[in-house]
Amino acid sequence: MAWGDSPGHECGIFGIYAPHEDVARLTFFGLYALQHRGQESAGIAVSDGRRIHLHKEMGLVAQVFNEEKLRPLKGYIAIGHTRYSTTGSSKLQNAQPFVVESVLGPLAVGHNGNLTNAPQLRRELLTRGVGLISSSDSEVITQMLAGGEGRTWEEKLRVFMIRAEGAYCLTVMTRDTLYAVRDPWGLHPLCYGHLGNGGWVVASESCALATIGATLERELAPGEIMAFDERGPRTIAHSPAPQRAMCLFEYIYFARPDSIVDGQTLHAARVAAGRELAREAPADADIVIPVPDSAVPAAIGYAQESGIPYQEGLIKNRYIGRTFIQPDDRLRKLGVQLKFNPLSDSLAGKRVVLVDDSIVRGNTSGPIVRLLRDAGAVEVHMRVSSPPIKHPCFLGVDMATYPELIAHRLTLPEIRDHLGVDSLAYLSLEGLIRATGNSGKGFCNGCFTGNYPVDVHLLEKEAFEG
Amino acid sequence: MAWGDSPGHECGIFGIYAPHEDVARLTFFGLYALQHRGQESAGIAVSDGRRIHLHKEMGLVAQVFNEEKLRPLKGYIAIGHTRYSTTGSSKLQNAQPFVVESVLGPLAVGHNGNLTNAPQLRRELLTRGVGLISSSDSEVITQMLAGGEGRTWEEKLRVFMIRAEGAYCLTVMTRDTLYAVRDPWGLHPLCYGHLGNGGWVVASESCALATIGATLERELAPGEIMAFDERGPRTIAHSPAPQRAMCLFEYIYFARPDSIVDGQTLHAARVAAGRELAREAPADADIVIPVPDSAVPAAIGYAQESGIPYQEGLIKNRYIGRTFIQPDDRLRKLGVQLKFNPLSDSLAGKRVVLVDDSIVRGNTSGPIVRLLRDAGAVEVHMRVSSPPIKHPCFLGVDMATYPELIAHRLTLPEIRDHLGVDSLAYLSLEGLIRATGNSGKGFCNGCFTGNYPVDVHLLEKEAFEG
Amino acid sequence: MAWGDSPGHECGIFGIYAPHEDVARLTFFGLYALQHRGQESAGIAVSDGRRIHLHKEMGLVAQVFNEEKLRPLKGYIAIGHTRYSTTGSSKLQNAQPFVVESVLGPLAVGHNGNLTNAPQLRRELLTRGVGLISSSDSEVITQMLAGGEGRTWEEKLRVFMIRAEGAYCLTVMTRDTLYAVRDPWGLHPLCYGHLGNGGWVVASESCALATIGATLERELAPGEIMAFDERGPRTIAHSPAPQRAMCLFEYIYFARPDSIVDGQTLHAARVAAGRELAREAPADADIVIPVPDSAVPAAIGYAQESGIPYQEGLIKNRYIGRTFIQPDDRLRKLGVQLKFNPLSDSLAGKRVVLVDDSIVRGNTSGPIVRLLRDAGAVEVHMRVSSPPIKHPCFLGVDMATYPELIAHRLTLPEIRDHLGVDSLAYLSLEGLIRATGNSGKGFCNGCFTGNYPVDVHLLEKEAFEG
Amino acid sequence: MAWGDSPGHECGIFGIYAPHEDVARLTFFGLYALQHRGQESAGIAVSDGRRIHLHKEMGLVAQVFNEEKLRPLKGYIAIGHTRYSTTGSSKLQNAQPFVVESVLGPLAVGHNGNLTNAPQLRRELLTRGVGLISSSDSEVITQMLAGGEGRTWEEKLRVFMIRAEGAYCLTVMTRDTLYAVRDPWGLHPLCYGHLGNGGWVVASESCALATIGATLERELAPGEIMAFDERGPRTIAHSPAPQRAMCLFEYIYFARPDSIVDGQTLHAARVAAGRELAREAPADADIVIPVPDSAVPAAIGYAQESGIPYQEGLIKNRYIGRTFIQPDDRLRKLGVQLKFNPLSDSLAGKRVVLVDDSIVRGNTSGPIVRLLRDAGAVEVHMRVSSPPIKHPCFLGVDMATYPELIAHRLTLPEIRDHLGVDSLAYLSLEGLIRATGNSGKGFCNGCFTGNYPVDVHLLEKEAFEG
Repeated sequence: MAWGDSPGHECGIFGIYAPHEDVARLTFFGLYALQHRGQESAGIAVSDGRRIHLHKEMGLVAQVFNEEKLRPLKGYIAIGHTRYSTTGSSKLQNAQPFVVESVLGPLAVGHNGNLTNAPQLRRELLTRGVGLISSSDSEVITQMLAGGEGRTWEEKLRVFMIRAEGAYCLTVMTRDTLYAVRDPWGLHPLCYGHLGNGGWVVASESCALATIGATLERELAPGEIMAFDERGPRTIAHSPAPQRAMCLFEYIYFARPDSIVDGQTLHAARVAAGRELAREAPADADIVIPVPDSAVPAAIGYAQESGIPYQEGLIKNRYIGRTFIQPDDRLRKLGVQLKFNPLSDSLAGKRVVLVDDSIVRGNTSGPIVRLLRDAGAVEVHMRVSSPPIKHPCFLGVDMATYPELIAHRLTLPEIRDHLGVDSLAYLSLEGLIRATGNSGKGFCNGCFTGNYPVDVHLLEKEAFEG
Repeated sequence: MAWGDSPGHECGIFGIYAPHEDVARLTFFGLYALQHRGQESAGIAVSDGRRIHLHKEMGLVAQVFNEEKLRPLKGYIAIGHTRYSTTGSSKLQNAQPFVVESVLGPLAVGHNGNLTNAPQLRRELLTRGVGLISSSDSEVITQMLAGGEGRTWEEKLRVFMIRAEGAYCLTVMTRDTLYAVRDPWGLHPLCYGHLGNGGWVVASESCALATIGATLERELAPGEIMAFDERGPRTIAHSPAPQRAMCLFEYIYFARPDSIVDGQTLHAARVAAGRELAREAPADADIVIPVPDSAVPAAIGYAQESGIPYQEGLIKNRYIGRTFIQPDDRLRKLGVQLKFNPLSDSLAGKRVVLVDDSIVRGNTSGPIVRLLRDAGAVEVHMRVSSPPIKHPCFLGVDMATYPELIAHRLTLPEIRDHLGVDSLAYLSLEGLIRATGNSGKGFCNGCFTGNYPVDVHLLEKEAFEG
Repeated sequence: MAWGDSPGHECGIFGIYAPHEDVARLTFFGLYALQHRGQESAGIAVSDGRRIHLHKEMGLVAQVFNEEKLRPLKGYIAIGHTRYSTTGSSKLQNAQPFVVESVLGPLAVGHNGNLTNAPQLRRELLTRGVGLISSSDSEVITQMLAGGEGRTWEEKLRVFMIRAEGAYCLTVMTRDTLYAVRDPWGLHPLCYGHLGNGGWVVASESCALATIGATLERELAPGEIMAFDERGPRTIAHSPAPQRAMCLFEYIYFARPDSIVDGQTLHAARVAAGRELAREAPADADIVIPVPDSAVPAAIGYAQESGIPYQEGLIKNRYIGRTFIQPDDRLRKLGVQLKFNPLSDSLAGKRVVLVDDSIVRGNTSGPIVRLLRDAGAVEVHMRVSSPPIKHPCFLGVDMATYPELIAHRLTLPEIRDHLGVDSLAYLSLEGLIRATGNSGKGFCNGCFTGNYPVDVHLLEKEAFEG
Repeated sequence: MAWGDSPGHECGIFGIYAPHEDVARLTFFGLYALQHRGQESAGIAVSDGRRIHLHKEMGLVAQVFNEEKLRPLKGYIAIGHTRYSTTGSSKLQNAQPFVVESVLGPLAVGHNGNLTNAPQLRRELLTRGVGLISSSDSEVITQMLAGGEGRTWEEKLRVFMIRAEGAYCLTVMTRDTLYAVRDPWGLHPLCYGHLGNGGWVVASESCALATIGATLERELAPGEIMAFDERGPRTIAHSPAPQRAMCLFEYIYFARPDSIVDGQTLHAARVAAGRELAREAPADADIVIPVPDSAVPAAIGYAQESGIPYQEGLIKNRYIGRTFIQPDDRLRKLGVQLKFNPLSDSLAGKRVVLVDDSIVRGNTSGPIVRLLRDAGAVEVHMRVSSPPIKHPCFLGVDMATYPELIAHRLTLPEIRDHLGVDSLAYLSLEGLIRATGNSGKGFCNGCFTGNYPVDVHLLEKEAFEG
């Protein structure tokens, strides 16, 4: 998917229980590997068995931490968080982990996801007399745990799971224990592994385990609560929903290609989706090119299955970062050229299959197509390795509102004309699920079908207003 | 008092209700005038009638705010805070104002003082199920108000005053009302005034009113709660302690000399203290010099009463700021010379009365005396315009711990020898109270006598350990 | 080439003469496109016909400039520079453009390259009585122009070209004219184009022209001086060396793949090099994978020619930036894993051709090979799309010193064993030149053969010491 | 003098030759003591006998340096500089010391003053073929030394003194020697002293020597060049002008009160000026108050001589620093109140003598007078301890232009009315010179009389335009 049309990533969470390691340092490198899940703020909390020490700030992991900031974070348990957020609530008070003093001692919480009944839970906390400092549902979770029913942390976690609805992967750290929690629908990934010297690691994605040399044990089951302490890792609760509902967008775009879900890398799933797409929507063309970087695997898969040669057709400026300089009018018309440049001699006179992994707002695809034509492409056939996105996500992905979604507003032929392509095809939902290799396991397809696994009506109105 | 031996200032609070003004801007200038009360962090919260907007950061007021930071702070009520703190808890999460969402809507609180029963109140909040993010008793106050008994803000404020013990001046802002609260002992100053166009202003000291062109009405009475809203200012509660106990250190050192308390400037009270001191402890000498800048008024008073000429004998480096460069050994022996330089031709061959307003740890007075002698002073008679400080403060002044207080450790002759002066005298407590011109009104003299107006045993142990 | 083993990029230069445009803004975007040529500092100088205004700082283009910094840069001619440098001389005083006041008025110079007789020219300037503030040969050039022989700028430029030896592409701005200069050997690329409304643009690479919507006219000829002013563009001198000697590393790695040199994109040349490599050094294998990102075109070419399927086998962390956190010992052993992660299911059980575009020090290739084997690759055949680098560059590329170059120290079998690959082959120099499609035009191959087109003995000693 | 009406301070210079000391650290503390002479930029250059290491930046000394910045500055000779400048040329390239490589090796220069023939010298350098990077006459000096006539540094310094006109105190550092130079008129102060262990120190003012524990030897004579190296200190040239012309403003305002010039502290001279003023212009009044802080000594002198009691009447906000927040209209009318607050009970009903040390533009005195009247003063008699300033300074003091100087535009009665005082008197030039105690020695009184000791016509035109 092209930069500028990407759904907001969500959040990356990480936890470690390792008496023989510099846990803050390992958490830093774990967050480094999860940086793609959120670039707004980063934080690490460490427990030394008595107190919890915290540092969090706005910025990338590598900007937020240096040796001086890491030095006071001494201990043997740590959790880390890297956060994405929409601009509106992009403030330090929303940065995670949340750390509070509670009646059972210090508590730190890192959260990935979105509670669909957060407005109601929020009201309950306020009524109970808790003042809330942020707009984040992660603070709601933290205060529910800090003050909720239950005489022990384990009881409190169980009570929380009864009350919460929606998407939540949590790392929860107390004075002496690391907990990992995955919601009953298994909406977002969470896995754990071991370090080989008595240490245990929890992370949103297995790439964070690989980066610090930990060995993947398995994913947490939907509805599972695990505890990691001196007694080793153990499951302390397991209350799955009737049907798993793993987010398909993790497969399509979010998770890093080298992360392993359901036993295969997401790269393999994306290549498979490209193959499915070639079978469902063949094209008569000379070359297959991806929208770099995320659609490269799907384009490779499409090329392999179709027999049409794989090529690079667009160069992405690797140094594109935030710039505060605005193009003037003339440059604005040139638009997407700041991020992508076409390879004229690959494209001139060619019939091109342009593969992308998804189209959200559709605002960058049109300019890319124009770039290709200006560089000499005689036909452009757009192929998208996921179904049309017609509905927002209410479960942790900052997708877009209804009015922003091009497939909500326009029909397929209208989109084709809007983008200026000779043909346009999306992968079917069935094809996408086949590509995951886990058809039977259950996926959330709310953004394609509007059928969400949980009740989202509390959040839906806002999304219609755009 | 010499830099390096000063008690920690406390905090400055400010509040404004002014529908026709740029309240954030006026709050900025009000805090600017209160900067001497705290240099660690600064913050402003503004209500526009629906929401409360907040900006706070570590640093001086002029560093924390610029036009860009001020711009979003639109509204018609504002409170501001400038904070001093000990290094240990010098963190952004302790910066004020505290702003929370509560069941009655948004709430912002600024606090100057120290609750003596904070540990107990803190425990009660944790038991009630509130997670606390900071070590600050100001957060305790905020959560007590956000979740405490009472159906209205006024009821909640009254309940709070029943439960709280110790020093607290508060500005409390809700969606549509500004409240000002002074503890029943009147431990620290709080006054209000009007702007002339329907606007009302509350501040720790009257100098903040003068700075923005507001006219002082009066000080709040001990135990008074005032409300400022569309109906104008009014007293909604008044529950004083049997005896007022205003902090004498506000008179001696803290408050700005141009601020008015009990009907006179503090400058006048300090000149009067110098006169009292000259009567109680005359000296046979050639010149009177102050330790600049805070002891200038007392030295002027001493000179006037004694007839000995007033002179400058020490120059203070105005550009001394925080430097991270450490002197080497040779320089370290030269010590205080970085901040003060002697005026050799004023001092050579002279018998000098050196006036200071107080001695806390006593670590800078000795080096200053050596400077004077090296510059040729033949006698140095030290005169201090307040009594010996033998006890820490538990009511909002970061004074020092028992082991640090020189007058707790040493007798008067021992101090004299330690400082290397020819004679040493402190002003009597009676003399000091006489100098305030308000002998009948009641003062807190805990740091001189150990007799505090409220029970401080919950805090005392720590202060002994030092 | 793998991150950490890359030769230092050189510099990017840009110039614009455009009375109807916001020249500073266009220069910003031009530098943005040239960011890959240098990330240490960036600068823009603008002439308004009377004065030259300058802003330069350490950092990426997007960090150095914001709207506030751009605002004062008003005028109709501009030059910009983005600089790479070795750490030692990484200082603001070396940042470019250099701007001086001279007897003929203000002068600004941007330089890409390295003068081989800089030590001698430097000595001459000092003898002539010029004090030099930096260690940069670009300051030498600036002072040579400012104070050199010649009554006009054109005469001064001609005199400069007689005295200078080595690599230099220059943009030179006076009050009213933009000059572009390419050394007689044509060592580094320099081209110009037009904007369509009377504006002219000069840049190191054509990608900068494309980014701002300018149309490429042609490359400057070796030894050409062009002037751009109200009379339009014109050649004012042309004194080529007997034989062109274009840097082959621009083809292999430096220049952006979408830039056009000698009539084709460098991407096409790199694909062609991969094809040549497949013909020269075939391998019996299951998949071809690149070291991302720079070796992707060569790997695609190798796959096309060999018929072995192209695959992705390594994921590069896109968020890798400068981190100040050091891995601990255990992590250090895991090494390259922070930057690259293997795709286990693409690699398991496979015989792999690993294509890289060059090997300089060889310190990252070994760890990458181990990653592939750990992920299950049963054979690894390394193929490099350029010849062994046995000599440093003295002409503008911060390559490495003799002792650092693996191909200077070790024989081919030794390198193979050192990297732990099953087979290793480099592309021949002839193959590489064939891939450029311009065999007859003349290239600098000093880093492969030690035969430099100019005398480098003044610089050679240092490079031996390492 | 009131903040906002101060003439620009000039510059502070410092030099040290001390094989047994951490010279960079001592230079830091020396500059700290000279901070009042310039707050725009600070820099330190150190020679280790082979190379010169430099760090300079915009900002106060304590902001520019920390331990990390100091660490690389190893050596045994150092010079330091703290610079004041007008906004226009407030840029890093003007910061000092200037360091260049020259034909005789590295050279570092720190300069306080202003060359009156700088435009001509600048033109000569440009003609000689030197490109100049800044608008500073200090760069002109540096390049004159680097490339000027003379085979040795000593010859070059002598040649420089023949060519230069105007004000210059210099510290010049070569690889192995520290030189100190004072212009033939002795326009600004420069002194030297010893450390007691073979080390020698040069500084603009003796307060810098006192701060680092050095003992003052003497001031340099007008026209003296001294060298400090392994042979100890020695005079290598002495070519005074026929008449010394020491800047009177150093006496009135610039130099720190504890610095010693001509054998007495400036504090004593300022007290003496106050006494002279009381004799020349007595007043019938109740109290004498200073404009703090600089006029305190003069007010004390006035009070002593007149017998009218000395009082404080205005409190200066110590925390006033640069703020980027602009007052709104209502606040703007309140004006000076941000910096000064009146002490109402000292002033009410009183006839006040307000003593200031000088009036430059006169823009702050009026508002101060209004403050005093608003606070109840019944009469205000302004007394100024220096003559009316009718001419700009061209010799190192950024005073103001002709149109800005109130005494150039208005007569005494007009100024009196403009300021709104009951009476106004300035000290006579004779009185001021008497107060210095050195009537016979010769002073520059150009700003009072328009008679400058050197030809200033090259600079005068600009000053008329304002």
